[in-house]
Amino acid sequence: MDFEHSPKARALIARMRAFIDARVRPAEAAYRAELDNGPDWRNWRQPAVVEALKRDAREAGLWNLFLTDTQDGTGLSNVDYAPLAELTGSIGFAAEVFNCSAPDTGNMEVLARYGSAAQRERWLAPLLDGTIRSAFCMTEPDVASSDATNMQATAIVDGDAIVLNGRKWWSSGIGHPHCRVLIFMGLTDPAGERHRRHSMVLVPLPTPGVTIERMLPVFGDFDAPHGHGEVVFDNVRVPVDHVIAGPGRGFEIAQGRLGPGRIHHCMRLIGVAEHALALLCARARSRSAFGKPLAGLGGNADIIADARIAIDQARLLTLRAAWMIDTVGVHAAMSEISQIKVVAPNVAQRVVDAAIQIHGGAGVSDDVPLARLFAQARVLRLADGPDEVHRAMIARFEQQRQAGAAP
Amino acid sequence: MDFEHSPKARALIARMRAFIDARVRPAEAAYRAELDNGPDWRNWRQPAVVEALKRDAREAGLWNLFLTDTQDGTGLSNVDYAPLAELTGSIGFAAEVFNCSAPDTGNMEVLARYGSAAQRERWLAPLLDGTIRSAFCMTEPDVASSDATNMQATAIVDGDAIVLNGRKWWSSGIGHPHCRVLIFMGLTDPAGERHRRHSMVLVPLPTPGVTIERMLPVFGDFDAPHGHGEVVFDNVRVPVDHVIAGPGRGFEIAQGRLGPGRIHHCMRLIGVAEHALALLCARARSRSAFGKPLAGLGGNADIIADARIAIDQARLLTLRAAWMIDTVGVHAAMSEISQIKVVAPNVAQRVVDAAIQIHGGAGVSDDVPLARLFAQARVLRLADGPDEVHRAMIARFEQQRQAGAAP
Amino acid sequence: MDFEHSPKARALIARMRAFIDARVRPAEAAYRAELDNGPDWRNWRQPAVVEALKRDAREAGLWNLFLTDTQDGTGLSNVDYAPLAELTGSIGFAAEVFNCSAPDTGNMEVLARYGSAAQRERWLAPLLDGTIRSAFCMTEPDVASSDATNMQATAIVDGDAIVLNGRKWWSSGIGHPHCRVLIFMGLTDPAGERHRRHSMVLVPLPTPGVTIERMLPVFGDFDAPHGHGEVVFDNVRVPVDHVIAGPGRGFEIAQGRLGPGRIHHCMRLIGVAEHALALLCARARSRSAFGKPLAGLGGNADIIADARIAIDQARLLTLRAAWMIDTVGVHAAMSEISQIKVVAPNVAQRVVDAAIQIHGGAGVSDDVPLARLFAQARVLRLADGPDEVHRAMIARFEQQRQAGAAP
Amino acid sequence: MDFEHSPKARALIARMRAFIDARVRPAEAAYRAELDNGPDWRNWRQPAVVEALKRDAREAGLWNLFLTDTQDGTGLSNVDYAPLAELTGSIGFAAEVFNCSAPDTGNMEVLARYGSAAQRERWLAPLLDGTIRSAFCMTEPDVASSDATNMQATAIVDGDAIVLNGRKWWSSGIGHPHCRVLIFMGLTDPAGERHRRHSMVLVPLPTPGVTIERMLPVFGDFDAPHGHGEVVFDNVRVPVDHVIAGPGRGFEIAQGRLGPGRIHHCMRLIGVAEHALALLCARARSRSAFGKPLAGLGGNADIIADARIAIDQARLLTLRAAWMIDTVGVHAAMSEISQIKVVAPNVAQRVVDAAIQIHGGAGVSDDVPLARLFAQARVLRLADGPDEVHRAMIARFEQQRQAGAAP
Repeated sequence: MDFEHSPKARALIARMRAFIDARVRPAEAAYRAELDNGPDWRNWRQPAVVEALKRDAREAGLWNLFLTDTQDGTGLSNVDYAPLAELTGSIGFAAEVFNCSAPDTGNMEVLARYGSAAQRERWLAPLLDGTIRSAFCMTEPDVASSDATNMQATAIVDGDAIVLNGRKWWSSGIGHPHCRVLIFMGLTDPAGERHRRHSMVLVPLPTPGVTIERMLPVFGDFDAPHGHGEVVFDNVRVPVDHVIAGPGRGFEIAQGRLGPGRIHHCMRLIGVAEHALALLCARARSRSAFGKPLAGLGGNADIIADARIAIDQARLLTLRAAWMIDTVGVHAAMSEISQIKVVAPNVAQRVVDAAIQIHGGAGVSDDVPLARLFAQARVLRLADGPDEVHRAMIARFEQQRQAGAAP
Repeated sequence: MDFEHSPKARALIARMRAFIDARVRPAEAAYRAELDNGPDWRNWRQPAVVEALKRDAREAGLWNLFLTDTQDGTGLSNVDYAPLAELTGSIGFAAEVFNCSAPDTGNMEVLARYGSAAQRERWLAPLLDGTIRSAFCMTEPDVASSDATNMQATAIVDGDAIVLNGRKWWSSGIGHPHCRVLIFMGLTDPAGERHRRHSMVLVPLPTPGVTIERMLPVFGDFDAPHGHGEVVFDNVRVPVDHVIAGPGRGFEIAQGRLGPGRIHHCMRLIGVAEHALALLCARARSRSAFGKPLAGLGGNADIIADARIAIDQARLLTLRAAWMIDTVGVHAAMSEISQIKVVAPNVAQRVVDAAIQIHGGAGVSDDVPLARLFAQARVLRLADGPDEVHRAMIARFEQQRQAGAAP
Repeated sequence: MDFEHSPKARALIARMRAFIDARVRPAEAAYRAELDNGPDWRNWRQPAVVEALKRDAREAGLWNLFLTDTQDGTGLSNVDYAPLAELTGSIGFAAEVFNCSAPDTGNMEVLARYGSAAQRERWLAPLLDGTIRSAFCMTEPDVASSDATNMQATAIVDGDAIVLNGRKWWSSGIGHPHCRVLIFMGLTDPAGERHRRHSMVLVPLPTPGVTIERMLPVFGDFDAPHGHGEVVFDNVRVPVDHVIAGPGRGFEIAQGRLGPGRIHHCMRLIGVAEHALALLCARARSRSAFGKPLAGLGGNADIIADARIAIDQARLLTLRAAWMIDTVGVHAAMSEISQIKVVAPNVAQRVVDAAIQIHGGAGVSDDVPLARLFAQARVLRLADGPDEVHRAMIARFEQQRQAGAAP
Repeated sequence: MDFEHSPKARALIARMRAFIDARVRPAEAAYRAELDNGPDWRNWRQPAVVEALKRDAREAGLWNLFLTDTQDGTGLSNVDYAPLAELTGSIGFAAEVFNCSAPDTGNMEVLARYGSAAQRERWLAPLLDGTIRSAFCMTEPDVASSDATNMQATAIVDGDAIVLNGRKWWSSGIGHPHCRVLIFMGLTDPAGERHRRHSMVLVPLPTPGVTIERMLPVFGDFDAPHGHGEVVFDNVRVPVDHVIAGPGRGFEIAQGRLGPGRIHHCMRLIGVAEHALALLCARARSRSAFGKPLAGLGGNADIIADARIAIDQARLLTLRAAWMIDTVGVHAAMSEISQIKVVAPNVAQRVVDAAIQIHGGAGVSDDVPLARLFAQARVLRLADGPDEVHRAMIARFEQQRQAGAAP
């Protein structure tokens, strides 16, 4: 049992932290200034500062590090990448600088693992280059997406083509001016075996029949320039070779996609929580009331201690889940992955809320990033499965395990 | 002991509910459509629909009901007005329709109780008419306003004038196109007795030296058309007769102002919580997953039950505080008022958060009002004294009471 | 709306408080000294001090006050009795002094309302006199009693007799040396309509076939001298006129019995919580660490404030439920009664736990009554329906109400 | 980073689990039957079954494994011993079977590290042999022991002797019939440097002047046969060579003693929590209400999931702290040790409470061990420093760390 990161990870942590401190954080004001975050995504532009930072990050070898690969040894393990994901969580656009943003990371993993040679050449290569971006279209507005069997969108094979119909929303990334491809998930064979009914289909953008109706705000924030779109697919026809791994394998791919993606989300949220705690502590030291720094008043020390404990526990749990993916695989780590998906967003939400409170009115304004961080944490209690679905899964796994053991 | 509202209150509740259902709620879409909620408050306009509704509400006798008056018997008691405040909480602009919006309500109470005849004629009359609106400038950005003795702004008597200097923020209402007067609180006699140092001064708008620098967003929402401003006072001179009740009485006025105002805030938040619970329950009945309505899944029934319990308790506590103000006065009810100020915003935040969760992605978007209601609840854990300050006061009162009793 | 107790209630509160302070509390040490609280209930004796106090309480007119009666006006209303029940909660054996102990109170109510003249003469009269005590046998060890339809014990009419079989536990009061009668609930007509299947039967003690197997401890405490028994009924034959209100009415009687009983339990628990808070505050003032009284350290003020808020809310909710029973009846108050049954025990458990914590090691010992109070609160999260069942009912009522209202 | 236990630890885990399953658990009923757990400790006897199991455990090489030693490599590391401590937590007397019970473990560590050759020969040898047991006398009834500087007991050097005076309580282990030595902590030099004032002194039992006044119950349980005593030291004279490491080093020794001891306590509590969760899950599967196993009702799945998450997090946090003690030492791990001391007892208390709830009435009785486990968890929120003191320390460490870092 060893709680220290590998030398390889430690070296990358140091380099990425230095890059963020020296280059990304100082660029934040410029980034915000360049950003049009209005509701009309057609006006959104990629801030030039991001492209410049991307070039430099790539040169510095801090590029595509998310692409873990325990088979051939060229990539990092999940447990080695995890602390890097945490670092990118402390500042909103850092992940893109290192070409490690969702949903591209998940889409690239899917293409790397399941894509045909042609698919990899056409879409994986430019995604890895950071010249295009992508979206993922799974959630639907009209049904409870927490239950995947509710999905109504269809992907019907029709000769050489596959025809897509349906309405999707929370299609993250689809507002990005560089977005050139999306992955659509739909029902291909409603009568098939429960886990063989769906397909994942690559759809170039633009394609006739794909209409982006609007971007959805999250607590009023449109998350420009990537956004979360509501998208209608109306008899969208693409060649059947755009199906990933062939019709009927959508569910299988989704499962594999979600493991590392959840590690990334959770570690970024731990970065969010650390950032919020740092702001909380700084405010508690620098502001005074009733003749004392806030840090010495009432229950504030308890709040700080509870935040530290919650963050450290969430990080250890997430690293353990990452290590399980590396050592026993996503399938055997499903309870552990669901555990972190419950813990990390809730911890982040709670710590950010506490940081807001100690900031007084400033906390809910945009003078500090806390309202934005709050939204980021809050939405992840819903995205990739709401807390409730994950808790139900954890309980089921626990009962299975317990039923095999003497109480 | 009687938990039923008086016949007078019940009749008003019925009429106000009917008015809201018939007139206000149907107008909400028009209201939102007319609203410019961008950051530049100079563009903000009062939606025409509000003025029309105000006329009708006034005709219907649903006007200025907040102006409780237990002295001469013409007004409602606080406990009679409370359920009406709750009703206005269920829909954001309803309070203005009935001329019962903060901060005007508090400002009108102050003028009614402490204003000179001239002040009442010049400002109270048009405020009661609903032809102008007002702002209240107390909180400051550079100090912890939870401790009133931190206040840095000054109001120095200079001959016939009083000269105001300082920077205020969270000056609610100051962005409203109808805002014509503000109440400024500042330090007049720093060496005076702790509760005799401050003055409240009426400042017409515009007045030279008063600069509204910006409006502050709350979780990204500018709360147009009233807004929350950051305002600089640079050698603002107004006649000394603009001081309310004379120099040095600011603290005393502030104390008296806060009691009924907190009842209003808390009852509106209970309205917010009821609205969120209604949305939660409706969603739980109408959406299904895993073959069942959400209402029948997992811990959702517990969430509904806990919300009902929390709301009913918060309402009873608030009504009790209102009744104490009516029967023993604000001073004797200070612990009880602090109690509701802790409870109501936290209950509202929790119920809204639960409602967001059951709505999935829709919950954080603007398809439902929950993100906005969340911001409304969240900010009231800070405004009018943060939770922490109120808890400290409650504990102090409790220890005083206990120290006089045998354990 | 009026939050003040009636003059009648206020007078009784003052007299009962004076009696407790002058007579009951000073007798506590003598009571404990006389008590044998070992597991063998055959050795249990009624402390003589209790009988003396009962005589004096009766003379003082503080006797059988629980017997509310809104029909003929001779008894108190539930809302008038509630604060008296709270007073008895602050000291364990006070309820018995005033002849207001569970389960006798519920049993007497049942007899008063449903008993035949003969039943009332034989059992109600001596119970009201305080010369005998009684037990209530409903819960069973082998099934989840949270679901009443699980009940396995039988009460089968056989000619002039009714024959009882089954195993009951948590038969409170059955260990008391004065216990002379129990009420047994069993299944009479398994095929009958769901709410007409059960009977309640009066069983004199001793009766052949009734075997008290043991007393059950609650966190190690046997609650002598009344106790909680496990009792076997093996072909117990009693005359059919011992059935209360006739066969098949057990469920109906149980429903009516539970309303006021839950008010009593909850108010006593509020008394428990107040007692714990008083101990907490006294300790916080008198002990010092790090150079300060504990009251001024860390989050202790928050703990005190939260306790005060929680207790006041629980009390108001319980009084509201009592008032509803008085004004609209138990049936219309079912959600409200379930609400208090969730709230009061949880509040009491939490406040007692906090009081334990501030007492350090003394808190878990028997130098202070907190461990005993903890057990009392904890067991009431289970007795008379566990939290979970009540929450489910509250949610069901809420959904019914909401479904009839526009969200 | 590696979350797997070392091969050495894994082998010991397997062997200890097998021993517990085959030998200790089946002996529990016999152990309880032999036990006199009355308040009079003079009647307490060591159950014969324990001595038999001790012999066999020693032969099986499962003996004194707590004695970690990272210097010479003969002992286990803390992180290797931790899972063994967890195993002993699932059954109350298992720790003694393996000669790993508190407070002997801490006392043996102190003697091994700081004891003179004579002290080690006289006391460490028989303690390691399991032929005698020991007690630790630090906490005092008259002051808040959470602040060590409050200590009033004295240990004054007088020529060749040291004279002890004072009153101690919660002297765990002192009721054990085998207890032959205690370690007393007292003030030797009140004017000395804050951390050089106290001494630890070995006191053989019996010694004139040492009076055990009583045993203290924990929620009514005396924890026979070891117990928690209140002990008076009245001019107790022992040779000055009984002082451990010389006068004035008590505080230093106490600090070093607490690190591994807290790991042990926390891991045992994690064992307690796992045991409670296993009981909870078994009950949830085997009991039915409303036509379903409890596992499928309401929020029970959430309760199970939250328990699993909380336990796994607490275990990881504790293992991390153990690993830090092994790698960077107790001093550098002080925040981490305080963190687990807050987390583990609270998690155990919460999980046991949930298990009680699902057991209904059985949960608070002694038919299941839950009430006893509850007391065990509850008392550890106080022993070895209450939650509050640890949270304050964690916050202080956090602020020191943050103040050195850019927010």
